[in-house]
Amino acid sequence: MEALLRQSRAMCPFLNKTSPATLRSMSMSSSVKHTAPGGGAMSNLQLIARRCPVMGKALSVQSARTGNSALAGAFGGTRAYHAKVPKARLHTNAPNQAQAVDMPSARREHAPFTPPMAQPATAAAAQHQTGVGPQPPKAAVFDYDAFYQDELDKKHKDKSYRYFNNINRLAQEFPRAHMSAPEERVTVWCSNDYLGMGRNQHVLNRMHETLDKYGAGAGGTRNISGHNQHAMDLESTVAKLHAKEAALVFSSCYVANDATLATLGSKFPNCVILSDSMNHASMIQGIRHSGAKKVVFKHNDVQDLENKLASLPPDVPKIIAFESVYSMCGSIGPIEEICDLADKYGAITFLDEVHAVGMYGPSGAGVAEHLDYETYANGRSTKGTVQDRIDIITGTLGKAYGCVGGYIAGSAKMVDTVRSLAPGFIFTTSLPPATMAGAKTAIEYQMSYQGDRRLQQLHTRAVKESLTKMDIPVLPNPSHIIPVLVGNAEVAKKASDLLLEKHQIYVQAINYPTVPVGQERLRITPTPGHIKEYRDHLCQALDSVWNELDIKRTSDWAREGGFIGVGQKDAQAVEPLWTDEQLGLKQFEEDLKAGEGALGMLENVLEREHVQVRQAVAAAA
Amino acid sequence: MEALLRQSRAMCPFLNKTSPATLRSMSMSSSVKHTAPGGGAMSNLQLIARRCPVMGKALSVQSARTGNSALAGAFGGTRAYHAKVPKARLHTNAPNQAQAVDMPSARREHAPFTPPMAQPATAAAAQHQTGVGPQPPKAAVFDYDAFYQDELDKKHKDKSYRYFNNINRLAQEFPRAHMSAPEERVTVWCSNDYLGMGRNQHVLNRMHETLDKYGAGAGGTRNISGHNQHAMDLESTVAKLHAKEAALVFSSCYVANDATLATLGSKFPNCVILSDSMNHASMIQGIRHSGAKKVVFKHNDVQDLENKLASLPPDVPKIIAFESVYSMCGSIGPIEEICDLADKYGAITFLDEVHAVGMYGPSGAGVAEHLDYETYANGRSTKGTVQDRIDIITGTLGKAYGCVGGYIAGSAKMVDTVRSLAPGFIFTTSLPPATMAGAKTAIEYQMSYQGDRRLQQLHTRAVKESLTKMDIPVLPNPSHIIPVLVGNAEVAKKASDLLLEKHQIYVQAINYPTVPVGQERLRITPTPGHIKEYRDHLCQALDSVWNELDIKRTSDWAREGGFIGVGQKDAQAVEPLWTDEQLGLKQFEEDLKAGEGALGMLENVLEREHVQVRQAVAAAA
Repeated sequence: MEALLRQSRAMCPFLNKTSPATLRSMSMSSSVKHTAPGGGAMSNLQLIARRCPVMGKALSVQSARTGNSALAGAFGGTRAYHAKVPKARLHTNAPNQAQAVDMPSARREHAPFTPPMAQPATAAAAQHQTGVGPQPPKAAVFDYDAFYQDELDKKHKDKSYRYFNNINRLAQEFPRAHMSAPEERVTVWCSNDYLGMGRNQHVLNRMHETLDKYGAGAGGTRNISGHNQHAMDLESTVAKLHAKEAALVFSSCYVANDATLATLGSKFPNCVILSDSMNHASMIQGIRHSGAKKVVFKHNDVQDLENKLASLPPDVPKIIAFESVYSMCGSIGPIEEICDLADKYGAITFLDEVHAVGMYGPSGAGVAEHLDYETYANGRSTKGTVQDRIDIITGTLGKAYGCVGGYIAGSAKMVDTVRSLAPGFIFTTSLPPATMAGAKTAIEYQMSYQGDRRLQQLHTRAVKESLTKMDIPVLPNPSHIIPVLVGNAEVAKKASDLLLEKHQIYVQAINYPTVPVGQERLRITPTPGHIKEYRDHLCQALDSVWNELDIKRTSDWAREGGFIGVGQKDAQAVEPLWTDEQLGLKQFEEDLKAGEGALGMLENVLEREHVQVRQAVAAAA
Repeated sequence: MEALLRQSRAMCPFLNKTSPATLRSMSMSSSVKHTAPGGGAMSNLQLIARRCPVMGKALSVQSARTGNSALAGAFGGTRAYHAKVPKARLHTNAPNQAQAVDMPSARREHAPFTPPMAQPATAAAAQHQTGVGPQPPKAAVFDYDAFYQDELDKKHKDKSYRYFNNINRLAQEFPRAHMSAPEERVTVWCSNDYLGMGRNQHVLNRMHETLDKYGAGAGGTRNISGHNQHAMDLESTVAKLHAKEAALVFSSCYVANDATLATLGSKFPNCVILSDSMNHASMIQGIRHSGAKKVVFKHNDVQDLENKLASLPPDVPKIIAFESVYSMCGSIGPIEEICDLADKYGAITFLDEVHAVGMYGPSGAGVAEHLDYETYANGRSTKGTVQDRIDIITGTLGKAYGCVGGYIAGSAKMVDTVRSLAPGFIFTTSLPPATMAGAKTAIEYQMSYQGDRRLQQLHTRAVKESLTKMDIPVLPNPSHIIPVLVGNAEVAKKASDLLLEKHQIYVQAINYPTVPVGQERLRITPTPGHIKEYRDHLCQALDSVWNELDIKRTSDWAREGGFIGVGQKDAQAVEPLWTDEQLGLKQFEEDLKAGEGALGMLENVLEREHVQVRQAVAAAA
């Protein structure tokens, strides 16, 4: 064996790089996550081999032929097989290899490759066996229904099965909705229609007009009759919003992220994509689909990112993919520092501003714009600003802009390349004219009016302050997201159910795999429509639910030494990205001096803002 | 070398399966399509190795370290490198491996790994080099802009660069549109709004109401505030349409196909996906993204499919993925025969009815329903029908239904599994309430009214008959698509441009990579709105363009022995899927006897149908 390995190393770069001891160890160790076709766990070496399209296919053919004994023998003997039952693994996204799939233990007796006896496939098969083709198989066929049932059972068992709530958001009663019964009202506290643009009268008017004039759908792909003035106008508005040369609109930002990363990552020769560990599923999929090498860096950790960049060959193309606002915890990416590193190491930056567009910056272009607030607010040259330095910005039309769809913005050449090569853009029906016209109106409205996002920020501050006073554990962050820590999947769902049933408040529980196990939370998103009455109701309801379910308070977490920023004594204070000055709070300092306290001042500011919003709404109607 | 190979075979299944002669030959032969990082062509063995995530990564690291000499040496010496300029390769979709990417010849001097001298990355990089991290690289970095430019140059050079036409389809003047100037009218002859449902008054009324009541957007993913009665109602309508237990709606059918195949293909252990060679890009991507083994069978060739099914282990899960109407040539899949094979070999069927829903069958459920026309038309039990036997049906809301979005339909367990596991469903904003409500109305309208699709078929027959009489080469097919053969990319684009500029008729040219080189065509899609006036105009315009550009007529192709069904003497007559009886043509036999001929009869029928349509439209308004 040793001699063989020594000689094989000259042939195979993988073997050459890996010591005999490591190979031997890999052949005997196994991952509990993966199951071999025979039902046992796969050795780590088998796992690597099955990922490989060359070896993987050979192994499949071989194992099918020989009933797996050859497979086992090839990688260090049958010791790699053992009877340990694999633990179910949950996916936030589909793995890129078919072989590394969980086989649930309960169905082991039905697993492929071990049919107990020959039997006809199904009754229907027997009925339809016609023609003179090859003989039908004598062995049992795969049990698809049993497989589905197992997958669902696993989701139920670990509480990750999703029950959707029937929430019908009412445009005229924003932020309220009705449940299945039209008269049953709830207040929605977890929508991503952050600014209520979904009911903005300018947007709706434009959509009505466009619907009547240009119909319900685009009628084709962008190349075949689905390109029109609405697409052109929307893309030029998006480009203007981000001060970029060009933009491209997709069905969604999920598709925009997936298609753009998959296309560039697969086309750039030997591309490496550096990905923040908390990136959204759409980016993770895009990277996977590109087939490019993926290097994950610690969340928002520029030192870790730099170490990883420095370890890569300088001339290899690199994409740094990250977000501005991470939606489940509300943290904000170190955009400027990442631009510095990109320049230093010859990488390009791919910034997902999905939860930030409409919400930050004087034009609502996002966090990158917000970082140069004064420059953009005063119409100075944007050359060299953080936003200008980002190569690819992606955003959505379905959250703060209240519609649906996504986009990328950047240089004309980059956009034209993606336009020309990405199947997810090319081979799909365009968004409807009315959707594109409505989204364009929403962007323009938010470019010219700051009131909604300032009000949203003020409501966010007010809720965070109230909850903090009530000892309810808010994960500290500088953004508009209010993640309230629960720490248990079952309890988080119960809290959400109680809020809905007893308090008519809808806040979805966020469980694994969207957040790690033990970090389950309620994710609260205020809007400009969440006036004092709703906010007070929310805080009282949360307090009641926290009591009823005996959920840990901030002080409880503090007694345990703190957890992910909650109750941590040594934690640095987190300053909101929108400063007091940007929110117009400075002029209310008198209130503070008069002893009304921060919350009193906020409510004063809010009252003033609401008057302005009412005026704006009246003007639009 | 021989001894080494012999011993290595025991280690590596790939080497074990491959003869020494083949390996040697692979190490010395090279593909003109692929370029090594050093700029030369890669040997075929290197190509295989680079596709492998294990070897590929090792090779990348090694080549970066040693400047490629080790890489060359590892696979048979430097003979594998030569100076041949690689030909540009065009992709209908992104390859799943980053390494096998074309490097255009014009940029060879800028290619990575051959920097002529050290230089700072960019001016900005020099400006922003801060911090105490590792030293910046001394070598040249990747030139992203040059890469984009090269990709675009290649598209221009081979005429596959897409110029989008600005077509604004006017709901009140269907099938007419305006170009960039609002007064400039054209007749659209290539939209996929096949039935004009995009301007159907029932659909528009419902959308207006929903827009006012529920706003512009859904405001969240299905799990977080984006689930509502509109989604539930639409999914139950789709399930009813296809007589299935359940359905699931996606942003588009591109996403539905991609997400469903990727999810099932990756979750089923050792899954094999059998794919028709003419499948749509969305299915190709889904299969790629699944990582499952892909077996391509010849277009609509059940014998080839059976041979491939028979060669696979019986107990391995298998998905047969195919379409009902293939949109670029109008051919129709052998659905029933494929169901027979699926039963026989224990496979499940995945049928894309994207171009058929709304268009075939008494309820508009598609070709599968149409195959049991009488059963469905008479409300008999649908148990055992072709549609009933299909496991997964996918369809769109963006073509015959005139809106946007896509779906899958099938068993409750299958749908729930995809709902629970597919990232492309889970992590994206729901379609807007108004879109879902409008689509539901469109489906229901088409379930209860046959007039539009019959009229569409009659117009299709009329145009096909006229063009045939005029010796204009129509690719024969049984569906509603009229592919007119041109056979050259440049001429096809010129024909399309001439039709638009000189005749105010919009028909997009379909070029490579959507169709094979040499099979370029104009793809004409009649609708119920294409009355005689428009049809006559189209045929005259095509005749004029065929003369002006000297494009081959059917008789020209016939003199050359025929091509892909055009001018082939021995070709079997193609019967339309909609029979004369189903179209109500039988009762007009008298006209035929009276000597008016087929076309005269058609026009009579059309006149009758138009009266009915006008009555239906009047009733809706």
